[in-house]
Amino acid sequence: MHSELIERLAARGLTLAVAESLTGGLLCAALTEVPGASAVVRGGVVAYATDLKSRLLGVDENLLATAGPVDADTALAMAEGVAQRLGADIGLSTTGVAGPDPQGGKSVGTVFIACSWGNTRKVEELSLAGTRNEIRSLTVHKALGLLASIVS
Amino acid sequence: MHSELIERLAARGLTLAVAESLTGGLLCAALTEVPGASAVVRGGVVAYATDLKSRLLGVDENLLATAGPVDADTALAMAEGVAQRLGADIGLSTTGVAGPDPQGGKSVGTVFIACSWGNTRKVEELSLAGTRNEIRSLTVHKALGLLASIVS
Repeated sequence: MHSELIERLAARGLTLAVAESLTGGLLCAALTEVPGASAVVRGGVVAYATDLKSRLLGVDENLLATAGPVDADTALAMAEGVAQRLGADIGLSTTGVAGPDPQGGKSVGTVFIACSWGNTRKVEELSLAGTRNEIRSLTVHKALGLLASIVS
Repeated sequence: MHSELIERLAARGLTLAVAESLTGGLLCAALTEVPGASAVVRGGVVAYATDLKSRLLGVDENLLATAGPVDADTALAMAEGVAQRLGADIGLSTTGVAGPDPQGGKSVGTVFIACSWGNTRKVEELSLAGTRNEIRSLTVHKALGLLASIVS
């Protein structure tokens, strides 16, 4: 699935950047597993600490203070920020609670994924069940699906 | 192994940032697999495209133009740059050729890993054999070992 997606992006001359929180690098790792990914994937930012979401991705500090890191608008701002700062056509992001403990009033399995490509913006809220690693893997799978839906 | 390493860093109050090229996020993903990793791992940068190594990590452009992205000094500059830019005590980096094709005159399996912690700096050159995914996984394993050796 990843290889088809990378081929589709490469055929259209599109580049991609990834901003991750709970997945911690797994999403970018999945995309760069594919030989030839370097034609498409410019890179990514793992903004694990909340302050890095503003420092590295330009997410508004007020948004982070009010809505928090696990939020639809934050996910969208992460996707837009990473595309802009890394000079890519498309930005893809993940933020959420992998567990084992809740975070900032959000329960384990609450996840937001977002994709931004010019004026096209999509964000999805997920309620995932499972262990920490299952929630991270499912988030990667869903984010790849969101990307595929945007460039279909 | 990762969990012991994260516990050791947490016990010493040390924070970590990761700069990756060929591993594409795998190293940061391995470190954040551990529950409680957020006390230690601030985040990471996947500088897959060469220009992002200077833009996001502050690696000298002349160094990239002369030595290239797959180089000991570049690996060290990536580790130092990510620690500084992400405000972490320790920086850990990977750069190399995962294949299937050689890159910039360097053969498949040529990899540099580096770790920087204040005045302590270590860099290792690896010659790895295997598939693209094996080379990426082995690099992660070796980088975790390098980090463990620095904070032993």
